[in-house]
Formats: sequence, C-alpha cells, structure tokens
Amino acid sequence: MQEVQFISILWLIGIIAEAMTGALCAGKKQMDLFGVVIIGCATAIGGGTLRDMMLGNYPLIWVENIHYLIAIAFASLLTVVIAPVMRYLSKLFLAIDALGLAVFSIVGAQKTLSLGFSPLVAVVMGLVTGVFGGVIRDILCNQVPLIFKKEFYALVALLTAALYVGLKSYGVSEWVNLAICLPFGFGLRMLAIRFHWGMPKFDYQYGEVH
Amino acid sequence: MQEVQFISILWLIGIIAEAMTGALCAGKKQMDLFGVVIIGCATAIGGGTLRDMMLGNYPLIWVENIHYLIAIAFASLLTVVIAPVMRYLSKLFLAIDALGLAVFSIVGAQKTLSLGFSPLVAVVMGLVTGVFGGVIRDILCNQVPLIFKKEFYALVALLTAALYVGLKSYGVSEWVNLAICLPFGFGLRMLAIRFHWGMPKFDYQYGEVH
Amino acid sequence: MQEVQFISILWLIGIIAEAMTGALCAGKKQMDLFGVVIIGCATAIGGGTLRDMMLGNYPLIWVENIHYLIAIAFASLLTVVIAPVMRYLSKLFLAIDALGLAVFSIVGAQKTLSLGFSPLVAVVMGLVTGVFGGVIRDILCNQVPLIFKKEFYALVALLTAALYVGLKSYGVSEWVNLAICLPFGFGLRMLAIRFHWGMPKFDYQYGEVH
Repeated sequence: MQEVQFISILWLIGIIAEAMTGALCAGKKQMDLFGVVIIGCATAIGGGTLRDMMLGNYPLIWVENIHYLIAIAFASLLTVVIAPVMRYLSKLFLAIDALGLAVFSIVGAQKTLSLGFSPLVAVVMGLVTGVFGGVIRDILCNQVPLIFKKEFYALVALLTAALYVGLKSYGVSEWVNLAICLPFGFGLRMLAIRFHWGMPKFDYQYGEVH
Repeated sequence: MQEVQFISILWLIGIIAEAMTGALCAGKKQMDLFGVVIIGCATAIGGGTLRDMMLGNYPLIWVENIHYLIAIAFASLLTVVIAPVMRYLSKLFLAIDALGLAVFSIVGAQKTLSLGFSPLVAVVMGLVTGVFGGVIRDILCNQVPLIFKKEFYALVALLTAALYVGLKSYGVSEWVNLAICLPFGFGLRMLAIRFHWGMPKFDYQYGEVH
Repeated sequence: MQEVQFISILWLIGIIAEAMTGALCAGKKQMDLFGVVIIGCATAIGGGTLRDMMLGNYPLIWVENIHYLIAIAFASLLTVVIAPVMRYLSKLFLAIDALGLAVFSIVGAQKTLSLGFSPLVAVVMGLVTGVFGGVIRDILCNQVPLIFKKEFYALVALLTAALYVGLKSYGVSEWVNLAICLPFGFGLRMLAIRFHWGMPKFDYQYGEVH
C-alpha cells in the first residue's frame, strides 16, 4: 500500500466522522432530513472547500469527484439511523473525530505545499482544513463555534500541520512523517480531552464593541 | 420570444422575490435601510454567487452586469415602502417565492451544464442556487436557516434540478423541458405549503456534540 | 513618501484596528486565545478576502504575504494584554476604527479599479472591503451584524468609496483624492457617532417570513 492510499483511507474516515458531527448538530436543532444532509456535507467538505477557494485551486475536489458528496450524504443519513446507539459510543466517536482532525490538518498542509505555496501558508491552510468544517457547521446551526472554546481543538490542527511541514522541510520521508504526525495530532487531542486541557480564555465584558 | 428571454424574465421575478424575503427578514430584526439593502442583495444573489465561486466561474454575473445589483437594491427598498400591504398579500408572495425557487434551481443546473460539468454536479448546483440565498439571509439575520426545517423547500430545489437535468440528458428540447420543470417545481412547493408536507425531522438531544 | 507608502501605513493601522475589534468581540463571548486570534484575523482580512474571492483575484494578499497574517495574530493577542486599559481608551479606539473604515473603503475601490473593473463595481467593492470584515466577525460571534444597525457605518463606506471613484474619474490626482476622501470618511463617521446619526430603521413584525 502506498502512502497516498493510506492517507486517502484516513481522509475518508475523517470526512465521515465530520459528516456525523454535522448530522448530530442538525439533530440538536431538530432539522429535517434534508437539513441533516446539507449540514453533514458542509461540515465534511467545508474546510477543504474554503481552503481551495482561498487558494484559487479549481476544480474543487468534490466537484471533480461528485461521488464523495454522495458518500457523505449517506453517512449523514446513516447517522440518523444509528443515533440511538451513538450516545453509548461517544468515546469511540471522539476518537474518530480526533483522528479526522489530525488527518485533515496534514492533508490540508500537504495539498497546499503540492500547489507550490510557502510552508507558512501550508500551516495556515492545514489549520483551515482541520477546523473550518466545524466552524461552518456551527454557523449553519446558529451557535458560537465550539472550536473557539474547546480543548485545544484548533491548536492541535495548527501544531500537527506545523510539525508535518517542518519535518517535510528537513527531508523526512512521507511515511515517517505520517508515522510521527498522525499519532502526535491524535494523541494530543485525546490527552486534551482526557485532562480537560484548554487555552486560557479571554473574558472582556466592558462597554460596547464597535 | 426565445427561451433565453423567457427564463431571464422568470429569473428576474425570482431575484426580486428573493430580495423581498431578505428585506422582510431584515425588518424582523429591526435593521436600518442599509441593512435591508445588503440583506436583500445577499439573499437574491447569494446562491448564484456561491455556485459560481465554487465552480471558479468568473466574472460573477452581478460583477459583469452591476445593474442587476442596483435593481435588487431598489426592490429591497420598495419592500419597505409596500410592507404595510405585504401582510395582506402573503399568499401572492408565497407563490412568487415558489416560482423563484423553481426558476433558480433550473437556472443553476442549466448554467453548470453549460460550463461543461457533469449532470450530478449540475443537480447539486441547482440545489445550491435555489436555497443558499435563503441560507445566507438567515445567517446574516442570526437565525437557524429556515430551509432546513421548512416544508420541502430544499427537496423541491433538488427534484426540480434533477428533473431538468434528467430530461435534458434524454434530448428533450429546452422549451418542453421548461414547460415540464417549472410547473413541477412550482406546483410541488405550493402543494407542500398547502398540505404542510415536510420531511421527517431528526431530533437528537443527547450529550454534547463534538 | 509616495502615496502608495502612505496608504499602506494607513491600511496597516486599519487592519490592526479591525483585528482589535475582533479580539474584543471574542472576549465578549469568552473565547480562548485561539478563538481570539482566528476572529481577529477574520475581521481584519475578511472584507478584502471576500472582495478578492468575488473578483477571482488570486493569490489573496495574505497568501502572497503571510507576514500580514502573523502581524494581525499578534495584534489580536496584544489586545488581550492591553484589554484592561482599553475601556479608558474607547474614544481613541473609535477614532482608529473610523480611520480604518475610511481607508478600507478607499483601498477596496482602488484595487478594484486597478484590476480593470467598472467604477460602479469599485464602489460596491469599497463597501464590501469596508464593512464585511465586521460582518464576518459578528457571524463568527453569533450575533446580528452590528453594521446593519449602527450609525451610518455602511453608508460611510459607500459614500467614501463613491467619492474616491468619482473624483478619480474626473482626473483628480491620487494625493488630492486621498486628502479629500480620508477626512471625509473619517469625519462623517465621527460626526455620526457624536450626534447619533442613523438611517431610518425598518420594523416589520407581521407573519412568518418565507
């Protein structure tokens, strides 16, 4: 198996995990099945779509290969079916989501580098790919984006993307790089959840913001 | 009259209907006249703009022909003037909106096909064109997008776009295709409103969504 | 000093002012430091990014020169540090923000003209550049965009951009144009704040908006 196939499989797992978080969020807002599918899709492909639109990189992945979108739509609907079981699997689900976060951040950085952009842009785009699907989900569900408040979520994306880009610039081979960055991103996120690590919060309640 | 002119007139009606829904929504949030105009414009052109940005299809229609935008701005302001009468015309208004939905879905699919994209992409883009103006309106007005909860709204867009693309692929002429798809989309939406048809809702209230 | 350098310095001031409004808004929602940085960046570069994405003008400024983004991130963090002092400086802050609004509107129109678009498109894009950073900030913070309700904010952007484009079309030199438009936009905004000028509000509370 080549690393391209390996990362593709992980990417698919990540996309499906993201679609499921979108579907569950839609369920919290009592949306209909169509809302569930649209929010599932927007969550799964939103980060990568925003990245490619900001880079001017066309055609978008899911426009070129529309079957991804259909797979995501099914994953969203499947979430509705298995929802009664989901709450007993919440830990498994968190783990899949953490894996997805790590994969998205790496893939986002990888794609950006392959288009010839600079390492710093690649790190920023790894972050965008990793977290903006969730941001779009929360905007569509009309709630303050969770990732701006949650344990290390965005920081994990940034650090994972930075580690990947850094190692790559030192000539580390793709396989070794993945073998380091995936466990790093996944592990950091799981530890942050386990020990409730978080960034300091900024609390400013004075006057009107203009 | 050619079908291009015919669909252009319908498209203009649809755009104005969309601008009016945007203006009324802004009025619900007690925005000032500028807010009314911006939300009217964003609602009317938002779906098509998002479609073209996702397809990388530049220049955008309203950038190439800025007079559309000025017309939409006037339609938004006009809504403020005629607002006291609007509530007695709510059924007429729903009918215009339903017509706009059908037209937008068809035009969105049509444009996408004419750019050389696949039929499935065209169906997705018909959906995007039909409903995302309303989604953007609701995001700007800080409310959960209505189309994710309302009678068949998004489904009408999807089915109308799919019917249009399907008939076209069988070589049905443009006029006949329009003569089938427009009444289909319009009628389905009106029936859904009349009989309160809706998709099943997904209600998930357990645990925190991550 | 050339006018390009002069406007660049003002633009930097404007960007930092915008980043600070974003950071303060994130503080109102008790976000963590990462949320503060992301919302600061989105507020500062959001308007220009949306403009360039709608014009299909790639690469984006901050993708080409990622150091802008890093500077904005630091400005956002700095806001957290100096927040305790900020509330005593609210008038200075309003003035900086008003300057930023005028500069963004002019720069947005200027860029659009330099890409060969028509004067009316340039005015619209001046408006987009001036106000959509704040709109994106408010969407990310899950509140109704303030600029749709506030004293003349969007109108200042529109008029400043229109004045700049109008004077330019009459062959007025860049320096003279800036010397007229900057005080005009800045002064109009400050007067609007001082005297609570505002656009008439549209209040529509009947029936359901569809």
